[in-house]
Amino acid sequence: MKHFTQFENKSLADRLIEKALAYKNNPRIDISKGLGKRVGCIFLNPSLRTRASTQIAAMNLGMEAIVMNMDKEGWALEMKEGAIMNKGTVEHIKDAAAVLGTYFDVLAVRAFPSLVDKKEDTEDYIFNQFIKYSGIPVVSLESAIRHPLQSLADMVTIQEHMLSGVKPKVVLTWAPHIKAIPHAVANSFAEWAVGCDYDLTITHPEGYELDEKFTKGATIEYDQNKALVGADFVYVKNWSAFNDYGKIHTTDPDWMLRESHFKNASGAKVMHCLPVRRNVELSDEVLDGQRSLVQKQAENRIYAAQAVLSMIIE
Amino acid sequence: MKHFTQFENKSLADRLIEKALAYKNNPRIDISKGLGKRVGCIFLNPSLRTRASTQIAAMNLGMEAIVMNMDKEGWALEMKEGAIMNKGTVEHIKDAAAVLGTYFDVLAVRAFPSLVDKKEDTEDYIFNQFIKYSGIPVVSLESAIRHPLQSLADMVTIQEHMLSGVKPKVVLTWAPHIKAIPHAVANSFAEWAVGCDYDLTITHPEGYELDEKFTKGATIEYDQNKALVGADFVYVKNWSAFNDYGKIHTTDPDWMLRESHFKNASGAKVMHCLPVRRNVELSDEVLDGQRSLVQKQAENRIYAAQAVLSMIIE
Amino acid sequence: MKHFTQFENKSLADRLIEKALAYKNNPRIDISKGLGKRVGCIFLNPSLRTRASTQIAAMNLGMEAIVMNMDKEGWALEMKEGAIMNKGTVEHIKDAAAVLGTYFDVLAVRAFPSLVDKKEDTEDYIFNQFIKYSGIPVVSLESAIRHPLQSLADMVTIQEHMLSGVKPKVVLTWAPHIKAIPHAVANSFAEWAVGCDYDLTITHPEGYELDEKFTKGATIEYDQNKALVGADFVYVKNWSAFNDYGKIHTTDPDWMLRESHFKNASGAKVMHCLPVRRNVELSDEVLDGQRSLVQKQAENRIYAAQAVLSMIIE
Repeated sequence: MKHFTQFENKSLADRLIEKALAYKNNPRIDISKGLGKRVGCIFLNPSLRTRASTQIAAMNLGMEAIVMNMDKEGWALEMKEGAIMNKGTVEHIKDAAAVLGTYFDVLAVRAFPSLVDKKEDTEDYIFNQFIKYSGIPVVSLESAIRHPLQSLADMVTIQEHMLSGVKPKVVLTWAPHIKAIPHAVANSFAEWAVGCDYDLTITHPEGYELDEKFTKGATIEYDQNKALVGADFVYVKNWSAFNDYGKIHTTDPDWMLRESHFKNASGAKVMHCLPVRRNVELSDEVLDGQRSLVQKQAENRIYAAQAVLSMIIE
Repeated sequence: MKHFTQFENKSLADRLIEKALAYKNNPRIDISKGLGKRVGCIFLNPSLRTRASTQIAAMNLGMEAIVMNMDKEGWALEMKEGAIMNKGTVEHIKDAAAVLGTYFDVLAVRAFPSLVDKKEDTEDYIFNQFIKYSGIPVVSLESAIRHPLQSLADMVTIQEHMLSGVKPKVVLTWAPHIKAIPHAVANSFAEWAVGCDYDLTITHPEGYELDEKFTKGATIEYDQNKALVGADFVYVKNWSAFNDYGKIHTTDPDWMLRESHFKNASGAKVMHCLPVRRNVELSDEVLDGQRSLVQKQAENRIYAAQAVLSMIIE
Repeated sequence: MKHFTQFENKSLADRLIEKALAYKNNPRIDISKGLGKRVGCIFLNPSLRTRASTQIAAMNLGMEAIVMNMDKEGWALEMKEGAIMNKGTVEHIKDAAAVLGTYFDVLAVRAFPSLVDKKEDTEDYIFNQFIKYSGIPVVSLESAIRHPLQSLADMVTIQEHMLSGVKPKVVLTWAPHIKAIPHAVANSFAEWAVGCDYDLTITHPEGYELDEKFTKGATIEYDQNKALVGADFVYVKNWSAFNDYGKIHTTDPDWMLRESHFKNASGAKVMHCLPVRRNVELSDEVLDGQRSLVQKQAENRIYAAQAVLSMIIE
């Protein structure tokens, strides 16, 4: 594995999940593996879980992690080839990424989409500039279109809670939100759930269709109640429109999951990547109840990152 | 000791002071004690001494410290139970604290008061939400109403400079300031000085009475000159009004200590927690003279934090 | 070596260059040398390379580095002696630096000039306050008038690429920029290049004369084309006017180096400290071509810092 940016194949996903579970069982079993190796964690956007879990994952492998909050401690990066840099940007990504490539063994990069320039976001332009110019392995800490460490942690969590030998019914449901939110978590979850061979249904109001590139193999069902019937795992997430790019079409509160939504899925577990807007995306009763796996997902972020870093430095 | 949030009893305080002095004498004597243990340092407000001294204390114990400046690198936390989160707050404390509880062995939290909502501040609501939801030991790096690590460092400093066998006269004096300042340092100092069985006098202009909860056992004297007679240690600190909550009643410069204030306390040592507004709270001549213990207090912050962390992870 | 703030003498420079090259060859050869020692990295201004390379250098020596972004995580420092601190500054440098002096074995400080108060900048007032009040060795991470770690890395880079036994012709050329930029990099480069006994020519438009204190021993040539004839190394850098302090007199794009400038210096290597404004200071064709040493300079920042820290803690 050179970079970690997306779901590659089931065999690799299975190995990563297995490795993550092994680390969860014994976090410091590979404490010497990363000795003398450095990961640079580059944040172009805020973070809580991702920053902390990646640092902890690195420490558990004996690696050194250095965090750089480019937006706060550094300066604006120029992303365009051939730009005449006589405006606000101070350094070109091709120079900054190349330097970081000489400073670290691995880069871990967070770069959100603009939700304005659909072409640039869809090409994952900014994230890919780091890959193009750093010359070293790059791990996605959430790019414009994917959040694969989250999805790996989600797959680990499902594996821990599914009945063995039975293909679970997994539902990804859109939820209301007050802001325009990226598609990355939803895209990646769909990509990994289908890739891991789960029975995936995606439900959302009309107009919220995700990029078909990520939803191949999933069932699309516009009626949330129908989608939830018999669900084993319900993944809750808001995203803005993809076709009418970055727009909010509705904030219909009926889409917010409450206990009453689970009449036909009484044993369903509920997942969310956090941070969650309580009583907007998901009700307190669900989040604080027995269905919720959100804390377990967050904890598994450590071991997902540890499995990925471990495989990257091999 | 589960949490470290306040003065508990003289026996525990004595053990902490003794431990801090032992670490000062040999900072790395317990370098293996914290191996594999992690402290998450959560700052909702700025810091210089507290951030650095806590990191150093952790390092001296072989622990890993991860600093999170929530206000700068993260997002606004929702503190209210049952909130419908459709405004500026991005994540509920109950979710964030619970995640941090799975990531760390100890949390160290700085959460200043609003100085607006007296009830919330007085209950130490925000700080206590971290205790309630993290599920792990929490160390106060200054809460709305207390700054116990500062006070422990102050007690260590007094112990280093007092005559053995003589109960020292300690004076806590209000000082002018241009901004409305929290009560935490003054509250804690009073709590610890009385708890450690020192002879404490508190002096301030009328209207600056502290919460009686913290001043029990101390003498209140409105005349600063009278209060200073025979003082061995004079602790200088501004605070805003408590009764007329968060208000500034006076900035009378006569309350600023100069050398001329020490006519009847010629051997008195002067203390301040820093940062200090020079020539507003305290004159240059006092701060730069022989009375000043402010640098020793700051240095002892390391060993106070080290003693607390050491006892917490036992 | 007590502090590292400037070029001292050729003998010391040679030893630092040699040491840096030895570390580049084997970064962790002194991994136990700094055990238990701490460097506090104080940033009053943003940084990418300097922050990361200093942390890495410390790690390579087994030292602990703690970064403090005073501008973001702390508060405004008062620099004036005797100030009555009733305005925006929260802590006096004499208190803050003294505390840092008790917390660390070495301080590394970045403090840019105002480009407004020429006297204060020229005296390197803020940086020197850290030396005056911390009481411990201080390493410059760029002060108002010098950037010696950059220059040391530059000398290492020249040494790696020069023909042995031949004194290279080194040209420092002014380049256009849209903002008023400090003189520190240009000053230091001149100081070190002359000090290391290179043949230095400085070229810039009239009005951009540097402080003569730094340019003694160099040839000043106002015609860029003439200056470049036969150059082996061309160091590109913008700076604002020194005499007409902090002013921008011209942004004449003819001063931006393109391939066509190298007709009479076909083998010249091009250097820049980064960040570089592409197609304003230097053209893409030069930066992306074979002449460019900018990435090698950036990499050598690690080993320059490592050599300095290593010698400081000896």
